[in-house]
Amino acid sequence: MTTDSQADLDRMFCPRSVAIIGASDDPNRISGRALRYIREGGFKGAIYPINSRRDIVQGLKAYPALENLPEVPDVVLIALPFSLAEQAVRSCANLGVKAAIIFTGGFAETGEAGAQAQAEIRAIAAAAGMRLLGPNCLGMFNSELGFFALFASSLDRQLPSSGPVAVVSQSGAYGQQIAYLAQRRGLGVKYCITTGNEADVSVADALMWVAGQPDIRVIMAYAEGIRNGPAFVRALDVAQRNGKQIVFVKVGRSERGAQAVASHTAALAGADEAFDAVLRQFGAYRAESTDEQIDIAYVCARGVPLSGHRLGILTVSGGFGVQICDAAISLGLDVPPLPESAQVRLSRILPSGSVLNPVDCTGQVVNDTSVIAESLDLMLAEGGYDAVIAFFSTLPIAASVAENLRRGVMEGTRNHADRLVVLCTVADPDSVRAYEKAGFLVFEDAARAVRAVAAAMRLTARRRLSSGVSDAAPEPAAIGQGPVSEFDAKRLLADAHIPVPSEYLVASRAAAIEAAQQSGSPVAMKIVSPDILHKTEIGGVILNVSGDAAVGEAYDALMRRARNAMPSARIEGVLVTPMAPCGVETIIGIKRDPTFGPLVMFGLGGVFVEVFKDVAFRLAPIDLEQAHEMIAEVKGSALLEGARGAGRSDIDAVAAALVNASRFAAANAGRIESVDINPFLVLPAGQGALALDAAIVPSQDGSAGPPAAGATHARAMG
Amino acid sequence: MTTDSQADLDRMFCPRSVAIIGASDDPNRISGRALRYIREGGFKGAIYPINSRRDIVQGLKAYPALENLPEVPDVVLIALPFSLAEQAVRSCANLGVKAAIIFTGGFAETGEAGAQAQAEIRAIAAAAGMRLLGPNCLGMFNSELGFFALFASSLDRQLPSSGPVAVVSQSGAYGQQIAYLAQRRGLGVKYCITTGNEADVSVADALMWVAGQPDIRVIMAYAEGIRNGPAFVRALDVAQRNGKQIVFVKVGRSERGAQAVASHTAALAGADEAFDAVLRQFGAYRAESTDEQIDIAYVCARGVPLSGHRLGILTVSGGFGVQICDAAISLGLDVPPLPESAQVRLSRILPSGSVLNPVDCTGQVVNDTSVIAESLDLMLAEGGYDAVIAFFSTLPIAASVAENLRRGVMEGTRNHADRLVVLCTVADPDSVRAYEKAGFLVFEDAARAVRAVAAAMRLTARRRLSSGVSDAAPEPAAIGQGPVSEFDAKRLLADAHIPVPSEYLVASRAAAIEAAQQSGSPVAMKIVSPDILHKTEIGGVILNVSGDAAVGEAYDALMRRARNAMPSARIEGVLVTPMAPCGVETIIGIKRDPTFGPLVMFGLGGVFVEVFKDVAFRLAPIDLEQAHEMIAEVKGSALLEGARGAGRSDIDAVAAALVNASRFAAANAGRIESVDINPFLVLPAGQGALALDAAIVPSQDGSAGPPAAGATHARAMG
Repeated sequence: MTTDSQADLDRMFCPRSVAIIGASDDPNRISGRALRYIREGGFKGAIYPINSRRDIVQGLKAYPALENLPEVPDVVLIALPFSLAEQAVRSCANLGVKAAIIFTGGFAETGEAGAQAQAEIRAIAAAAGMRLLGPNCLGMFNSELGFFALFASSLDRQLPSSGPVAVVSQSGAYGQQIAYLAQRRGLGVKYCITTGNEADVSVADALMWVAGQPDIRVIMAYAEGIRNGPAFVRALDVAQRNGKQIVFVKVGRSERGAQAVASHTAALAGADEAFDAVLRQFGAYRAESTDEQIDIAYVCARGVPLSGHRLGILTVSGGFGVQICDAAISLGLDVPPLPESAQVRLSRILPSGSVLNPVDCTGQVVNDTSVIAESLDLMLAEGGYDAVIAFFSTLPIAASVAENLRRGVMEGTRNHADRLVVLCTVADPDSVRAYEKAGFLVFEDAARAVRAVAAAMRLTARRRLSSGVSDAAPEPAAIGQGPVSEFDAKRLLADAHIPVPSEYLVASRAAAIEAAQQSGSPVAMKIVSPDILHKTEIGGVILNVSGDAAVGEAYDALMRRARNAMPSARIEGVLVTPMAPCGVETIIGIKRDPTFGPLVMFGLGGVFVEVFKDVAFRLAPIDLEQAHEMIAEVKGSALLEGARGAGRSDIDAVAAALVNASRFAAANAGRIESVDINPFLVLPAGQGALALDAAIVPSQDGSAGPPAAGATHARAMG
Repeated sequence: MTTDSQADLDRMFCPRSVAIIGASDDPNRISGRALRYIREGGFKGAIYPINSRRDIVQGLKAYPALENLPEVPDVVLIALPFSLAEQAVRSCANLGVKAAIIFTGGFAETGEAGAQAQAEIRAIAAAAGMRLLGPNCLGMFNSELGFFALFASSLDRQLPSSGPVAVVSQSGAYGQQIAYLAQRRGLGVKYCITTGNEADVSVADALMWVAGQPDIRVIMAYAEGIRNGPAFVRALDVAQRNGKQIVFVKVGRSERGAQAVASHTAALAGADEAFDAVLRQFGAYRAESTDEQIDIAYVCARGVPLSGHRLGILTVSGGFGVQICDAAISLGLDVPPLPESAQVRLSRILPSGSVLNPVDCTGQVVNDTSVIAESLDLMLAEGGYDAVIAFFSTLPIAASVAENLRRGVMEGTRNHADRLVVLCTVADPDSVRAYEKAGFLVFEDAARAVRAVAAAMRLTARRRLSSGVSDAAPEPAAIGQGPVSEFDAKRLLADAHIPVPSEYLVASRAAAIEAAQQSGSPVAMKIVSPDILHKTEIGGVILNVSGDAAVGEAYDALMRRARNAMPSARIEGVLVTPMAPCGVETIIGIKRDPTFGPLVMFGLGGVFVEVFKDVAFRLAPIDLEQAHEMIAEVKGSALLEGARGAGRSDIDAVAAALVNASRFAAANAGRIESVDINPFLVLPAGQGALALDAAIVPSQDGSAGPPAAGATHARAMG
């Protein structure tokens, strides 16, 4: 998105004037709601209802047509039936309008004819340099301006107030619902943008725009699929650099779900695992449910930076303390005990409670709330915790206890205003609001509190931002569209600095024997042909061959078997290679995603990938740190670390190979469908690793999908 | 628990008269709260405050001492300081009281001296045939009788009303909180029993009693550890037979959490995995959070039996429909499409929506709610769904839409009163209550709704109840306390009908050669000594030996290595066995849990168990069906089913071996610490399986812990 287009979006999302074509005088009709909300919201700019049959609409002077307006409005809302919408877009374009929001449905979501109509309005707008939101969208709002151009009936109750949260959603229903739920949770929502059919402005564009707004801290986003992978990645990257936390819900994880997406939206559904990898790689969080999304936004909106993942737990009930501890451990948080000196002091205050962590004040707080104050103060001052969760059960339910508790909490946190203190308690809404006003977060359910805090720790941690790859990317390799033999694949990978065994491609019995002598016995021997992809199935691999005679016989046998199995195959010869040393088998792969471009994949060999789906993906290219993150993400990597009594394997060699594979993938984004290095054998620490087998499948269609999303991204950042 | 002790608990939990020793005139003090709640609750029985300094307490005639009462009360509440509690228990015993509830703290939870005091009151009560609840408990209530002998301040707001739910909790804080939350969710809670220090009545006893109450459908339970494994198992079994759904929260899953449990409670913390296995085996559900526990109770309390796991989804927003579908699939539910004839009819009603499943009514319902009625009716009538989730976003927020929606929903479900219909919608509390009164369940969050429905499907499914093992259990084996050699271990397992290879134990070079000739070469040869447990470490295993000379040399080498490595070892000879055929390596284990007795374990070999913790446990003994359930529970079993292109393995042989191992475990519960059959090699289907190696560790202490919890259980059911 260029700076110009950003400015056009400023006009759309922060307009000084608005015209509404098709504005109804009835404030309850869809075509009347936006006007009603904009008026009720106190929008200060000019509001121009366009209605050819009325002089006055909802108390405002109406105009018969766009052309009659005293000025060109910043944005035009189109709330017309399908049959009239295209003409309205044309009028906007002719008048020089730079932004239009189209509520009208009946376009691409209904089938081929609708898609053509959508292409038509898109072309009209593009030619006139006009940005479009929609069609078939619920609109958007900017609550600070009182610009509520959204026709959700949930606004009937109360118009949202402004705050550090933005909502960006492809689905109108989803967007208005989370805006409503956030508002009810006490979160101010400044922007809510729903993109609908995305004829022009996509979720990626809206994210990019919101990521540039200085007063936004948290972005709640929703999509069913991403249309423009590289633009989406750029938006995530800018959001990360600008310190915005993105909490994303994307549906269609299951196969049935993905089918359902396909059946109700025209959105391109790229591989879910690619989406997952991209969010993780660029510091956004994927929530599994709407509750989780709101919970995390609630914590992040508080704006407390969390530099680690050390959790302090204060409780009035041992059992709940343990429940919180279990949940924290399962999410990878640390629950370290207090320093010993603090334990000693605390045990004077809490003779019958626990002073480790969880700190258990027991029921005695009902009689003596100073215990709360002193424990909290000590934990915040000396525990070294990044966040403290304080569990108070149902204590605020009884009025007498509630007041004592409140005093204890306020006193205990007085000197720690900048810290994240989460109260976990069952209380009345008024009491919750009062604590929130004083800067606390309040959850009812302990497990939800922990999950949200853990997510916020991941999101707000000061990360070393990925800098892309600074060296010049490698040259594209010479890959045609035809099949690539194992020998050629290994040669290409060796050129990309991925280690392969010393190998000899021989075309005669005598050469085979000489190669085996050079390699040192025993050797493995394999037929080499671009036409034979599954060598073992035709007996094209013979292992553990020793001695000149046996090598000679094996050569003849391989050639015979290949000819018998596939008489037309082009046979390049036989590969002679030393038998592999002992090591841990892993898999390195490259896979082209239609939305995001080439991904690099890592997993342990065999069952790990196939049975447990224990793999990590990243958008290519990656750097060494990201490679190590990928390796750590794979559970089976415990084997590389030396599980089961074995020694540590050469993990650095794996990381280097992943980086080089990812750069190879990026440099050849248009040419490669997939690469499968399997097994990639990892030797003991210091001894390296070897690509024992490799297959490269070139792109068949010549179209590279998005042209190397990652590479583009790396250039954009370079 | 005998029938007599059940009757004593009837007296405690359903009393006709109650005395309160230490009843305060101040209704806000701990010692005054129970009296206040019992009066406010409208308890119809006699209430006798005992207070030596007042004639009237909270408006009731008070008595100076227990001995002055006109009758022996059914239950006595003891709300005294620690120093006076023992004397009060003694007075109760002397007077012939049969049930006492002791709020007083200061007992086992404070250390050794307190534990002795607790043992003392326990002995006094036992001698007098009196049941005790507590000490250090929050008490209990029976809301139908208005008997609120619970001093939780959360009762201040509103006393719970009766219904199909019972709460059984070791922790008072936890118990009162879930009772409060259930009440707020509209669930009637008839019994709430908190057991505290469990000097007498334990969570197991309370579960058993509640499981026998005919008007209870759902039991929400909480514990940190189980004191009496066999009693707990019997209670779960009775609950299952009586059709009660148990939703359990047990904390201490993480190691840190288990330490925290140990630091604040005297409860025996048996292995968490054993607890997990027992709940699964006896049809109870372990919830991970309090929210989840309440959600599941909410669904189960509705009392709709669910015979399968087919979910229908109706939605007004495609995106949320997919979210529900994703969640359902991830929890193992089926989301099958409507039958084609129904799809055809539905597509007439929904020209622009989706008619598969999810059925998407789109936003058109705002204008035409008959669409809801007809879609719901069709899904319920013809979809074959066990439950239907209907998602309506924020529609009820706008008053005009809410009424239309309500009519549509009522009409669409009119002919399906007996079905489970869950509305997923954001609505005001009044509107939610109205739907609930009409028989609907209402959730706000889609993911939570799905999780609760999935759990209810698991809980209420008509299960074939485990019948224990009907054949006579095998005789105990001859196992001493000394070490058991591999040879003896295999012989013992062979006697228990677990297949082992044909093996020869030889004590001379010549015998070794003859054994190898009998076996057919090649053979594996291993040193046999009860003193050498780790044979491979001393070079005590030689594989792939062929030919007389090689066999003879191997024999000599093994004897030499054993003598060098451990000159004092008793050497029984050398094991000669045919080399193993190809198969899938699995592990069968037996492990003694201190709480529950012997568990049988199954997992795939090696990394599966160690890296992924991919194992299943069951209390021994099990039957064939349970064995197959265990195998299916292990993800890696995909390899036995023929993943990775291999053929199907002999799963029936694994199941039979698990049953036999479990019966061996039960028959020898007192004698065995652990058994490790690793590898247990599974051959292709029809060819059986073989225990290639086995180790038996006998009990060292002679104390068997609980005497074969499972065996006891099997007898109890027999």
